[in-house]
Amino acid sequence: MDEKIIYEFGKKTDGNASMRALLGGKGANLAEMAQLGLPVPPGFTITTAMCTDYQVRKAIHPELKVAIKTAIAHVEAQIGKKFGDVNNPLLFSVRSGARESMPGMMDTILNLGLNDQTVEGFAKTTGDPRFAYDCYRRFIQMYGDVVLGVGADSDEENDPFDAILTEAKQKKHVQFDTELDAEDLKQVIVEFKALIQKKNRGIFPQDVFQQLEGAIGAVFGSWNNERAILYRQKYNIPSDWGTAVNVQTMVFGNASNTSATGVAFTRNPANGTNEFYGEYLINAQGEDVVAGIRTPHPIAQLEQEMPEAHKSLLEIRRKLETHFTDMQDFEFTVENGRLFMLQTRNGKRTGLAAIRIALDMVKEKLIDQKTALLRIPAESIASLLVPVFDPVSESKAKCIAKGLPAGPGAACGKVVFTADRAEEMAKAGYKIVLCRAETSPEDLRGMLVSEGILTSRGGVSSHAALVARQMGKVCVCGAGDLTIDYQKKTITRDSVQLKEGDFISINGSTGEVFEGEIQTMPSEVMQVLNGTLAADKSETYRMFNQIMEWSDSNRQLSIRANADTPQQAAVAFMFGAEGIGLCRTEHMFFNGNRIDSMREMILADNEEQRRKALDKLLPLQREDFVGIFKAMKGHPVIIRLLDPPLHEFLPHDEPTIAALSKAIGLSVDEIKRRSNALAEQNPMLGHRGCRLGIAYPEITEMQATAIFEAAAEVMKSSITVQLEIMIPLVGFVRELKNQIEIIRAIGNKVCSKNLINIPYRIGSMIENPRATVRAHEIAKEAEFFSFGTNDLTQLTLGISRDDMGKFYRAYTQHEIFTVNPFTTIDIAGVGELVKLAVERARKVKPTLEIGVCGEHGGDPKSVEFFHEAGLDYVSCSPNRIPIVRLATAQAALKHHR
Amino acid sequence: MDEKIIYEFGKKTDGNASMRALLGGKGANLAEMAQLGLPVPPGFTITTAMCTDYQVRKAIHPELKVAIKTAIAHVEAQIGKKFGDVNNPLLFSVRSGARESMPGMMDTILNLGLNDQTVEGFAKTTGDPRFAYDCYRRFIQMYGDVVLGVGADSDEENDPFDAILTEAKQKKHVQFDTELDAEDLKQVIVEFKALIQKKNRGIFPQDVFQQLEGAIGAVFGSWNNERAILYRQKYNIPSDWGTAVNVQTMVFGNASNTSATGVAFTRNPANGTNEFYGEYLINAQGEDVVAGIRTPHPIAQLEQEMPEAHKSLLEIRRKLETHFTDMQDFEFTVENGRLFMLQTRNGKRTGLAAIRIALDMVKEKLIDQKTALLRIPAESIASLLVPVFDPVSESKAKCIAKGLPAGPGAACGKVVFTADRAEEMAKAGYKIVLCRAETSPEDLRGMLVSEGILTSRGGVSSHAALVARQMGKVCVCGAGDLTIDYQKKTITRDSVQLKEGDFISINGSTGEVFEGEIQTMPSEVMQVLNGTLAADKSETYRMFNQIMEWSDSNRQLSIRANADTPQQAAVAFMFGAEGIGLCRTEHMFFNGNRIDSMREMILADNEEQRRKALDKLLPLQREDFVGIFKAMKGHPVIIRLLDPPLHEFLPHDEPTIAALSKAIGLSVDEIKRRSNALAEQNPMLGHRGCRLGIAYPEITEMQATAIFEAAAEVMKSSITVQLEIMIPLVGFVRELKNQIEIIRAIGNKVCSKNLINIPYRIGSMIENPRATVRAHEIAKEAEFFSFGTNDLTQLTLGISRDDMGKFYRAYTQHEIFTVNPFTTIDIAGVGELVKLAVERARKVKPTLEIGVCGEHGGDPKSVEFFHEAGLDYVSCSPNRIPIVRLATAQAALKHHR
Repeated sequence: MDEKIIYEFGKKTDGNASMRALLGGKGANLAEMAQLGLPVPPGFTITTAMCTDYQVRKAIHPELKVAIKTAIAHVEAQIGKKFGDVNNPLLFSVRSGARESMPGMMDTILNLGLNDQTVEGFAKTTGDPRFAYDCYRRFIQMYGDVVLGVGADSDEENDPFDAILTEAKQKKHVQFDTELDAEDLKQVIVEFKALIQKKNRGIFPQDVFQQLEGAIGAVFGSWNNERAILYRQKYNIPSDWGTAVNVQTMVFGNASNTSATGVAFTRNPANGTNEFYGEYLINAQGEDVVAGIRTPHPIAQLEQEMPEAHKSLLEIRRKLETHFTDMQDFEFTVENGRLFMLQTRNGKRTGLAAIRIALDMVKEKLIDQKTALLRIPAESIASLLVPVFDPVSESKAKCIAKGLPAGPGAACGKVVFTADRAEEMAKAGYKIVLCRAETSPEDLRGMLVSEGILTSRGGVSSHAALVARQMGKVCVCGAGDLTIDYQKKTITRDSVQLKEGDFISINGSTGEVFEGEIQTMPSEVMQVLNGTLAADKSETYRMFNQIMEWSDSNRQLSIRANADTPQQAAVAFMFGAEGIGLCRTEHMFFNGNRIDSMREMILADNEEQRRKALDKLLPLQREDFVGIFKAMKGHPVIIRLLDPPLHEFLPHDEPTIAALSKAIGLSVDEIKRRSNALAEQNPMLGHRGCRLGIAYPEITEMQATAIFEAAAEVMKSSITVQLEIMIPLVGFVRELKNQIEIIRAIGNKVCSKNLINIPYRIGSMIENPRATVRAHEIAKEAEFFSFGTNDLTQLTLGISRDDMGKFYRAYTQHEIFTVNPFTTIDIAGVGELVKLAVERARKVKPTLEIGVCGEHGGDPKSVEFFHEAGLDYVSCSPNRIPIVRLATAQAALKHHR
Repeated sequence: MDEKIIYEFGKKTDGNASMRALLGGKGANLAEMAQLGLPVPPGFTITTAMCTDYQVRKAIHPELKVAIKTAIAHVEAQIGKKFGDVNNPLLFSVRSGARESMPGMMDTILNLGLNDQTVEGFAKTTGDPRFAYDCYRRFIQMYGDVVLGVGADSDEENDPFDAILTEAKQKKHVQFDTELDAEDLKQVIVEFKALIQKKNRGIFPQDVFQQLEGAIGAVFGSWNNERAILYRQKYNIPSDWGTAVNVQTMVFGNASNTSATGVAFTRNPANGTNEFYGEYLINAQGEDVVAGIRTPHPIAQLEQEMPEAHKSLLEIRRKLETHFTDMQDFEFTVENGRLFMLQTRNGKRTGLAAIRIALDMVKEKLIDQKTALLRIPAESIASLLVPVFDPVSESKAKCIAKGLPAGPGAACGKVVFTADRAEEMAKAGYKIVLCRAETSPEDLRGMLVSEGILTSRGGVSSHAALVARQMGKVCVCGAGDLTIDYQKKTITRDSVQLKEGDFISINGSTGEVFEGEIQTMPSEVMQVLNGTLAADKSETYRMFNQIMEWSDSNRQLSIRANADTPQQAAVAFMFGAEGIGLCRTEHMFFNGNRIDSMREMILADNEEQRRKALDKLLPLQREDFVGIFKAMKGHPVIIRLLDPPLHEFLPHDEPTIAALSKAIGLSVDEIKRRSNALAEQNPMLGHRGCRLGIAYPEITEMQATAIFEAAAEVMKSSITVQLEIMIPLVGFVRELKNQIEIIRAIGNKVCSKNLINIPYRIGSMIENPRATVRAHEIAKEAEFFSFGTNDLTQLTLGISRDDMGKFYRAYTQHEIFTVNPFTTIDIAGVGELVKLAVERARKVKPTLEIGVCGEHGGDPKSVEFFHEAGLDYVSCSPNRIPIVRLATAQAALKHHR
């Protein structure tokens, strides 16, 4: 091994916070804390490189085994205990720790080093045999589950170890684990070991090094368990990063009543308020706090219960924020009155909290404006725009419980209790709220499709709260007054009972839970933008506005909107659009009964019939464009000519066909015959885009006439028109030339007829792979480019978005798709063609305006790519514009160009 | 003008044969002949650059007008006549002449310079007023048609000028034009001029310079007439080449009975025999010979009629072949006993003739082997392989006429008389023979879709013969005993009458025309290859074999075949395939009733059901592969895993569904429900290719098992197996990895079970654009690449071959497609991606074997591209292999690598 494979921390510390890639987030920060002089129990980190090695070797590298022994010796020297010593045994925790935190996704083992001998020594040194045997049975249980695979099956509700424990309590007629004494626990341990053997998973090992190697292997292996893969997919974490393993001296929050364990945030992770926030449990071990079995106490209470520890924590909170200049989420343990730091990391937070913390830290001069912008996930802006409950409707609703406000916003939906049911109902189109006593990683799929999440147990660091923060879901957790019964499928509070399918409403900003459906209303930001609320009355608007201002002063990409109607255009301008990047003319044809004329045109048997129908459409299209131009108020607007396959416009159900027959005077049979003749095997690859206007130039003529006549009309009323006409699906430069010729001829005709000069440009969509390789040719004729990345993705990947469902699941499972390529642009594939096209086009026309109008234009990660690729603007749906304003600024800050 | 725009020929000659691009073929060769001292009437050539200029300017460049006057002055000085001189006028012909000969596609004007005054001087100097006025009326007629657009409409059978002429003859009760005297013709001229005015096409110009400019403009304009565009498309002539214009002193083959005009070939263009070949007419003007109005005399007869001229022609024939070292097609005119050369060019020839001439010229040491190979169009090889009439069947058939053998081969089909009807019948699936009195460019479309062409008028230089030679069509022309009546739609010979739709058979090698249907049999080459004819008995086989031998010693690309059955494989090897480049497993599933198991597998609701059905398919697939491996005899074979969307295999008609229901025990309703669930919006972009084996790994497992077990079985009988397994539609390297893992696991299992080592390689199809940009990644995992250019074309262009029909015609009309991109690879678009992929792949794996298995692998032009792109082999359908052997050699000779 050339590289260092183990990094120690403690008295001598090898790593630091910058080494996340190699040591994982947890390992790097343990090292950093040790360097800072914070009380970190000594231990060592096995690098992520060893994880990658493990995936190939399916075993621990021989050299790693040797290095582990050396590192253990160093810890032993610091602590004065020996690993496996029957008299005074050194115990370890073994924890995963990836580059990015993946809470609850991978495995952890505590109390490692106990066996039938050492447990006796441990009992002696702690003077508490009950405690020692409890640690031992916990260890066997965890080891049995994680390393030997003897755990609860996902569909089997009860953990088999828990079953043994429960039986022991029943036999003794007691309620709590703590009521079992050392002898009881010894018997439990015997049964635990028997269970493992019965399940044919080998024998629980007595050799402590064998224990350790088993645990390390299991942690490495858990990198590829199903939920870890699902998590990586959602958050785009590459599978080749791997996880590090942290082996650390055990400290015990459950050693006595002067012991405790807790989780704290340097600020409120739900709303961002600058307050010390967190929770703890007296006499408890690590996972108890997060697991939600006992509801922990809020951190403030520690001041009374353990004033010394509380004082130290406040000092540590200050140190951490000053040092890391970001909100920290840390774990601590008090062992017999002595405080230890077990972990710190940048705290996950809701969108609202991210925004408030970033803005506050600028005010506090902890970070500068640019850092603040980079620290707010662009999607967070959505949390300032989501609807809130309508106060009138809310005041009438019955509040049935109050929990912790863990994910701000208002959510209303039908009650469901399981992830499977959640997925079913969501698929059927229902809005749902997932209601669980507590959530676990198995619920992830269900949480993804829910409007909001409600739990009756667990605090702000519970799984539900954590995931909700990360997903930006509305969440109320630990609403302990509610009884959630999975068997009966009910939520009960006194006389109130909600069943599966009933409506429930939750306010994640206040923690309130309501029976029934509550109307929502626009967020404060929307109210200010709509003019129904004064700007200075809203703190939320102030934050929104601050970020938008900073973003605009940093970004280099322009932002346009995809809008097909004057209404949509108005929303776009309200959110700060600088123009319309895509106005789809096809949607206009569906308005009112004009679809009849459209259908008549499509069903025409010859040019004459077609022209007759087009003549009817002309005044309607003109009217649409007049509306658009007026709404633009002089901003540029790109109008795209008719794009979709004509067959899409035709009716398929008998009543509509009959009505059409009457309307256009063509027999039902004839309509069906012609409609069948127009059907295509692969409409996406068929007669659409500019192919329509080339085969039927009269369509382009009609559209151009409508556009130019509308422009002339609007210009005559002294409104500026910045017109850009876009030709879809160009692959050959001659296609573009053909359409340009038709449009210019019409333009000249309308201009001279109206004695007016309409300035306009004609550009090309770049949405088929051929166009990207011939970009230099097309650029010579085009006055602008606009990437249609939806089609470009479909063609480059050879995948129809509509038909992807059949293999999408397999593709994400096998990590062929690490992200949905229709959500975030496939940089390695489609992106290569985008870059090629930009490069080739700019070589012949350096000043060519190039933008993107596919849905990727609204996706922050894709926006970053478009910035790097040198585009001039992105165009997205109106309600994505605030998010994209921030995303473009972040792109500019990350990649100066 | 910086460039020279006019090149003179005559006493002083500016150009030569190498200047085709600038002077066109005709102009360059007129110059060359003049340089050689052959008797060329003086004149000048206007460059093709001026044609391009004309297309933009829509008028003649002012400087060209000046240059024309200078050039005319030089001709006047040589000839001693003046242009427009009322006493002794100089007359010109004005002819088009493109870089590649486009016979009959563009316009020609003769006798230019005649007007109401000069015609009188011309009458005096020739001493033949009838002749002079006949020239004048011909000139007006041509000028009226070509320049002023007063001609026969395509659907109007009679030329309006001809109508006047016919009326004049009827009035005078005479039959032939020659029976009209000068006074009659003067009256005809008056009426001609009146017709022009009546049709509102301006006035026939009296100014000779105006005449000349009009004629030049019309020739330039004819470059873009519809039939010229159609022709260019068929022969891939770029529209920007333009045509030159040749202005040449008129000589008159119709001046007297010691005058003549003719067309000759230095060798027989129909079968390639080394004999002087051609035809002439006494007292006739240029176009008369080609037009087929009078049937000309064979050239041999000239020895009797004009021994001097004949002797000179023999000498010229020798000079031309020695000089141009290729078969020449030339035009000559004898004016009052004096011979003039009007044109020479490389003669168009049938495939058979091309082959024989090339081989003979090597023997005669005129050209070397490599030149010979390059001179044979690769497609010509097909003419050695086309079926011939079965002698038994032929001997029973009634021969009803004999014409000239103008296009070798045997054709049999239904009689049709018009191009429109030909297109209709061909579309309906009938084999047809187009029967015309004579053909014109309007018939081109009809000729394209016919099995063969029969004319009752015209000789070997007639339009029909010319086009047939070029298209490789079977053709008999000038079968003068037949009366073809368009109105009655009959062909009559004595008592025999054939109606439209009746069968007719023509032998283009002998000129025989038969009533009814004659059976065909394999060509001599096929008979030798099949072993039913001794090689030394067949001259055709000797030629075939010679070319194949030379080709193989020159080519650098390997050749494989696309073959799915042992039978196809056998044909491929007979033709010289070096392996199987594509064995599609899907076709196997349609054999017999195994389709039921396939359908059962497709309709399976879960993995268990699917495995059950796959188990039934396994032995059948194994059997198929055993057959294939045996047929291979140790040659490499690439087996592609299941590719098409599963829905394609399902039945859609009620009876088949009912039968399937019985066979697999699934209700009709359930079959329909599941079938509907499998339907896709764009199946080409849906669940197919490797996506099948990734979502349903059990399919890949079954196929891999069948392949390896078959290989093991065959290897045990001591037959070598060179196995290559190919994964379709890979876009992401992880797709390939996924399938490789499954296949290798099965491979190991089968090998160890059978105690045998099966050598095999796993490769990737490169057929989606993403694969081309990620080729460097995919190459790391793949052991070979094979371009699937059908899919790659569909995706790169965004065009489905199945749905292209709706706009294909518009796309060829507008020259967006200059060639069908599914026939010849789109080098500028798809080709760019192919080159990119090769470059990227070879960078990481320089020795990677790369081939192509799309249908483009059988297209000579595409093959040339694949050679240049650095591929290792092409794979094509078995019957294309001989053609591809020559094409690969030509590619290697053109582009040494």
